[in-house]
Amino acid sequence: MGIVVQKYGGSSVATIEKIKKVAETVGKRKESGDSVVVVVSAMGDTTDDLIELANQITEYPDKRELDALLSTGEMISASLLAMALKSMGYDAISYTAYQIGMRTTGQHGKSLIEDIDGEKLRKSLTEGKIVVVAGFQGVNDEGDITTLGRGGSDTSAVAIAVKLDAQCEIYTDVDGIYSVDPRLYKNAKKLSEIDYEEMLELSSLGAQVMHSRSIELAQKYNIPVYVGLSTSNIKGTLIREVTNMNMESKPITGLATSDDDVAITVKNIPYNINSISNLFGKISSKRINIDMISQTAPIDGIVNISFTIPKGDLNECMSILSEITDKDNLSIDEDITKFSIVGIGMKTTSGVAGRMFKLFAENNIEVKLITTSEIRITCAIKTQDKLRAVKIIAEEFGL
Amino acid sequence: MGIVVQKYGGSSVATIEKIKKVAETVGKRKESGDSVVVVVSAMGDTTDDLIELANQITEYPDKRELDALLSTGEMISASLLAMALKSMGYDAISYTAYQIGMRTTGQHGKSLIEDIDGEKLRKSLTEGKIVVVAGFQGVNDEGDITTLGRGGSDTSAVAIAVKLDAQCEIYTDVDGIYSVDPRLYKNAKKLSEIDYEEMLELSSLGAQVMHSRSIELAQKYNIPVYVGLSTSNIKGTLIREVTNMNMESKPITGLATSDDDVAITVKNIPYNINSISNLFGKISSKRINIDMISQTAPIDGIVNISFTIPKGDLNECMSILSEITDKDNLSIDEDITKFSIVGIGMKTTSGVAGRMFKLFAENNIEVKLITTSEIRITCAIKTQDKLRAVKIIAEEFGL
Repeated sequence: MGIVVQKYGGSSVATIEKIKKVAETVGKRKESGDSVVVVVSAMGDTTDDLIELANQITEYPDKRELDALLSTGEMISASLLAMALKSMGYDAISYTAYQIGMRTTGQHGKSLIEDIDGEKLRKSLTEGKIVVVAGFQGVNDEGDITTLGRGGSDTSAVAIAVKLDAQCEIYTDVDGIYSVDPRLYKNAKKLSEIDYEEMLELSSLGAQVMHSRSIELAQKYNIPVYVGLSTSNIKGTLIREVTNMNMESKPITGLATSDDDVAITVKNIPYNINSISNLFGKISSKRINIDMISQTAPIDGIVNISFTIPKGDLNECMSILSEITDKDNLSIDEDITKFSIVGIGMKTTSGVAGRMFKLFAENNIEVKLITTSEIRITCAIKTQDKLRAVKIIAEEFGL
Repeated sequence: MGIVVQKYGGSSVATIEKIKKVAETVGKRKESGDSVVVVVSAMGDTTDDLIELANQITEYPDKRELDALLSTGEMISASLLAMALKSMGYDAISYTAYQIGMRTTGQHGKSLIEDIDGEKLRKSLTEGKIVVVAGFQGVNDEGDITTLGRGGSDTSAVAIAVKLDAQCEIYTDVDGIYSVDPRLYKNAKKLSEIDYEEMLELSSLGAQVMHSRSIELAQKYNIPVYVGLSTSNIKGTLIREVTNMNMESKPITGLATSDDDVAITVKNIPYNINSISNLFGKISSKRINIDMISQTAPIDGIVNISFTIPKGDLNECMSILSEITDKDNLSIDEDITKFSIVGIGMKTTSGVAGRMFKLFAENNIEVKLITTSEIRITCAIKTQDKLRAVKIIAEEFGL
């Protein structure tokens, strides 16, 4: 029998009753013969409540102290789960990031895992203990408590699975990964498996199921990750490397949308490499994330450039641009939905983009901007067209 | 300028507003030129709330996990206070017990401090930082989180003061140590100073102001401890070694009462050392704390023995005794108040006991049991006589 690392999210441990339920499930798994490590998030809204406390102290809490504060949420759920397991007769022990040497680098609030002291975990497992680890947290070289960012417990779980060469199971409040968000398209199909690359593209495009860094890590070390419900036998989704594409595989695995961006068009830019790199350099220096970029062909040495940025950065971006060019040259389009289709089948199937654009044209769906990667096509469309576009494409590609 | 260790109790940091108040007070002290270490308890009722959570999991929570759970309370208040200080422009840093190597030995829930990594504290102070330490917690040789028992933050503060050779100030919700609990005797006088020994006797006799282990530690290393309010300029009490007793010093410094005990009398015990040591041995083996003991002179080789135990242990104690002797030989007296007078002046002033017993006799106050130490006399009296006894003795000795 092997080692399994299970992660339970905040909604799975939101109440004492739910913690007892998780303890039962974990205990049964242990009885089946597996060695079990459990990674837990904070109970329900605990993290938000702690952030609220910090914001009552000051609008901009010190990031080191905020991490120290937030880390307590996972310590509480970890110790309670270990208590529940022990009260049911299982040998169990809870660990903080400190105690298992979960070393991190990088900034507070979004630290990156560097290494884990696997020996301590292995010793406890060898002693027959169920190990419960507080997720989301780490400790840096200065000995300060750090956190991994929202959803970071997924990454804690994958990192431990990598270290222990274990299976990884992420239990959450959805029963798996869907080809399309079921709230947008009620006939959406659940995927029995999905490739790391596809999941990464979907995560970064707005599918909120998993922390994208956890998928990068799983891909890097080729650790399959199961995502599903802990409370039922409904089969979830396995994220893994999908190599044996057969002829009948679909070219598209999933579809994601996001309404969080705005498009800016800058007109009458002199067409030379300096002026364009100057434009994007100044925006990037303010840590504003530029996404879709399109440029018209030069006419009389002049081009127009459009690009999208997160809505929250609009004011700052406009003030940078107004230093570079006249206000009359700037226009903003807030009626933007990013619409993406993803599938490693695109690598081997041609004509996917053509099918999509033909359908959009037939249905009067205006495409404002386009970007592509090897396994993804993203269009900016009008928000009002979103649900129609989802339905047309999902039906066309059998999602 | 020196180093000062200040401890703020749970009521002083019960709300965000109060934490900000404490930050102001601490900041001013830092500005006055002192290096400041602050030890905090958990906010308000946090510890009780966490215990309640654990009890919802199981009636008897695992002690290691309970310590891990409870330690989060002080981590929350420490990080919030450090945040508040930083937001006011002071350089500050919070530390957990782990981070300052607050090593403990002994059982979970009542661990004893063994040593502290003073270097980390000194380095932060040298850098001009205000250091905020989570009280009540430690870490044992296995790397497990431990706690020091109720009121343990007092002991954390004194231990740090010992390590840094610093002054120690305990801020609480009372304005100092009184000769008598003002709730029992409204004319009670506040003491400007009190000897360690006296404070220890009063603490263990029911005066709940301070964790008695903190006073033992302060006495051992001769660290004066100031106890008072943080929110006003009212002068508190200094606990220190009082050596220069002058002729006019009072023989009694304070008076304490406790209603938490019950007296048991065992009759017709054969008078030999085995049967008596057997009796107390069996009770002690169940960790029942036997306090006042009195034994009648042997008549025909038979003695009667009375002693007091905590009320909560009565049932267990009776079941032990019923194995040793017939039920008819056992009687219980629940109408017991322990009444104690304490003063290092008793060492040099004779007749204190005589004055007390004369007054009790004149006022018809029955004395059921008596024990004494070099600086203390304790009587068990009827609970209904308590307030009268307090008034009579307080007036006689000018408390």
